[in-house]
Amino acid sequence: MAWSSIPVARVAAVIRIFVTGGTFDKNYDEIRGALTFGDTHLAEMLRLGRSRVDVSIRTLMMVDSLDMTDADRELIVRNCVQCAESRIVVTHGTDTMVETARAISAHPGVAAKTVVLTGAMIPYAFGSSDGLFNLGSALSFAQVLPAGVYIAMNGQHFAWDRVRKNRETGVFESV
Amino acid sequence: MAWSSIPVARVAAVIRIFVTGGTFDKNYDEIRGALTFGDTHLAEMLRLGRSRVDVSIRTLMMVDSLDMTDADRELIVRNCVQCAESRIVVTHGTDTMVETARAISAHPGVAAKTVVLTGAMIPYAFGSSDGLFNLGSALSFAQVLPAGVYIAMNGQHFAWDRVRKNRETGVFESV
Amino acid sequence: MAWSSIPVARVAAVIRIFVTGGTFDKNYDEIRGALTFGDTHLAEMLRLGRSRVDVSIRTLMMVDSLDMTDADRELIVRNCVQCAESRIVVTHGTDTMVETARAISAHPGVAAKTVVLTGAMIPYAFGSSDGLFNLGSALSFAQVLPAGVYIAMNGQHFAWDRVRKNRETGVFESV
Amino acid sequence: MAWSSIPVARVAAVIRIFVTGGTFDKNYDEIRGALTFGDTHLAEMLRLGRSRVDVSIRTLMMVDSLDMTDADRELIVRNCVQCAESRIVVTHGTDTMVETARAISAHPGVAAKTVVLTGAMIPYAFGSSDGLFNLGSALSFAQVLPAGVYIAMNGQHFAWDRVRKNRETGVFESV
Repeated sequence: MAWSSIPVARVAAVIRIFVTGGTFDKNYDEIRGALTFGDTHLAEMLRLGRSRVDVSIRTLMMVDSLDMTDADRELIVRNCVQCAESRIVVTHGTDTMVETARAISAHPGVAAKTVVLTGAMIPYAFGSSDGLFNLGSALSFAQVLPAGVYIAMNGQHFAWDRVRKNRETGVFESV
Repeated sequence: MAWSSIPVARVAAVIRIFVTGGTFDKNYDEIRGALTFGDTHLAEMLRLGRSRVDVSIRTLMMVDSLDMTDADRELIVRNCVQCAESRIVVTHGTDTMVETARAISAHPGVAAKTVVLTGAMIPYAFGSSDGLFNLGSALSFAQVLPAGVYIAMNGQHFAWDRVRKNRETGVFESV
Repeated sequence: MAWSSIPVARVAAVIRIFVTGGTFDKNYDEIRGALTFGDTHLAEMLRLGRSRVDVSIRTLMMVDSLDMTDADRELIVRNCVQCAESRIVVTHGTDTMVETARAISAHPGVAAKTVVLTGAMIPYAFGSSDGLFNLGSALSFAQVLPAGVYIAMNGQHFAWDRVRKNRETGVFESV
Repeated sequence: MAWSSIPVARVAAVIRIFVTGGTFDKNYDEIRGALTFGDTHLAEMLRLGRSRVDVSIRTLMMVDSLDMTDADRELIVRNCVQCAESRIVVTHGTDTMVETARAISAHPGVAAKTVVLTGAMIPYAFGSSDGLFNLGSALSFAQVLPAGVYIAMNGQHFAWDRVRKNRETGVFESV
């Protein structure tokens, strides 16, 4: 309803969200007793956060980022390049988040865009997830940061080439 | 620990958080069967979000914002002026959040500071709270927005004089 | 499906559940910022508990038990008497649970029935509710206890005339 | 404290709880991104349920029931035989719960005891767990059922030799 008076020329949402899986979206499969991927929780999380940000969500894949292939990364890059929006959030497993950020930043087609990758250490389906905090943070950074490719984790943002994940502590650190 | 190599001259945390109560921090009193205020959940929420933002939390009061007096607002303004930090988050009941934002913005002592007020529609102690999303959002906006007084709700940010709360829908809208 | 071989004469579920409100079913009204009653959470709770008990749920009223009138209690008693099931669970506010149990037990029409009243100290909608534990407990006691009127709280069961709620601790105690 | 006036001769709690692991107690290891066992959640769950049942908890092992060995089962049986309590709850993975129940029932030393095995389809650490419901149910059945070895799942109880787990639906069924 907020958009009822928007001129016809406007075709893009304010923010495009690309879902790629990662811990964010892991579920517990009660028949197999194991972690698994089902549908993304993104829409539910935005509803819970009472988000009024105009977003358009597209699920590109549903994988653990350790299993992500070069072809998967190409798909993510191509979507970042081709989408109409200039502000993008990518949900992604934390283990190779920086690698994907590098691939995105290497393409000249995103030079004028703000791309924020985020994820979670604990699945959203767990009561104790950091996912909702990270999503609020990433959406906010994506609205105000200048063009560039960023990692948003732990309430902080980092230029993609200034950060690494500390595998022992699970924390993203400046380098 | 991340700050071990910070030069001696640095005295302030990156962000000061002032807690004033509001729905954010309402608890359920199981003996009286009613909503009540206890200690703030801010520290617990930052832990859950695995926040690594350097913050300093101070509880100024614990009130429903409909009960907030002029003296309460003066206390909030004075703390915003006097604290060493130039980036501030204020947790606040949503009903009079804009009124307090106006009081803060009226003081010349905050002209160079970024102040972000945020809150929640559902208490954090409820499973379905928007509080964690809003906190992630407010902390992020507070790190990157230029000096000014803002409301951060529903994943969006508004200059304090460009927003009102719609009492019927519970949503903050541009004016 | 478990009932496919049940003889035609069987018309009643194993357990009848009467919902009367109480803390169990209190919600948080985000527009008014207050506790309120909406629809019962009973069906959702049974789904969460993966209950396979054959139950039939009827909502008789949705009130705080401190507001329950004599007419309300008559309605509860009449339903306990008239329902086809001989095993009954009543969800009820804790403050006057014993009073309603007394009213039920006074009617000769329930002499051959097992009636278990239960409730919660914290609303189910709160993450920290005791409701799911109490519901599992009450349903189990209702299946195996002999005819009589009981209170099931805190994992325990009490004959209705051997228990009182300690208003200071919120705990049901033997008398 | 409730037991301060209990005569000296009383040495046993009302119910002994033996913890063996299973889905009940699976955690999410955020560094490894996998399910794991840490400490049991039993005490926390009893606190959440505001349980006033006099229990004594002992963790015997912390394993997935598919990995349980004959030696593990002997340990469970021996503890059921030797403990002073005549009412016992065993938390256990669902996949081989019936097998352990059979081993317990085969020992003459438990002939006079009521032993109830229970578990969960979803880890307690997940928001959507059936664990709290099952624990309330198992503790209640353990207090009132006559001597025997039982499975308590889905709000129901079964004699150990009258039930099987349907691996496709995850539901315990009468046989």
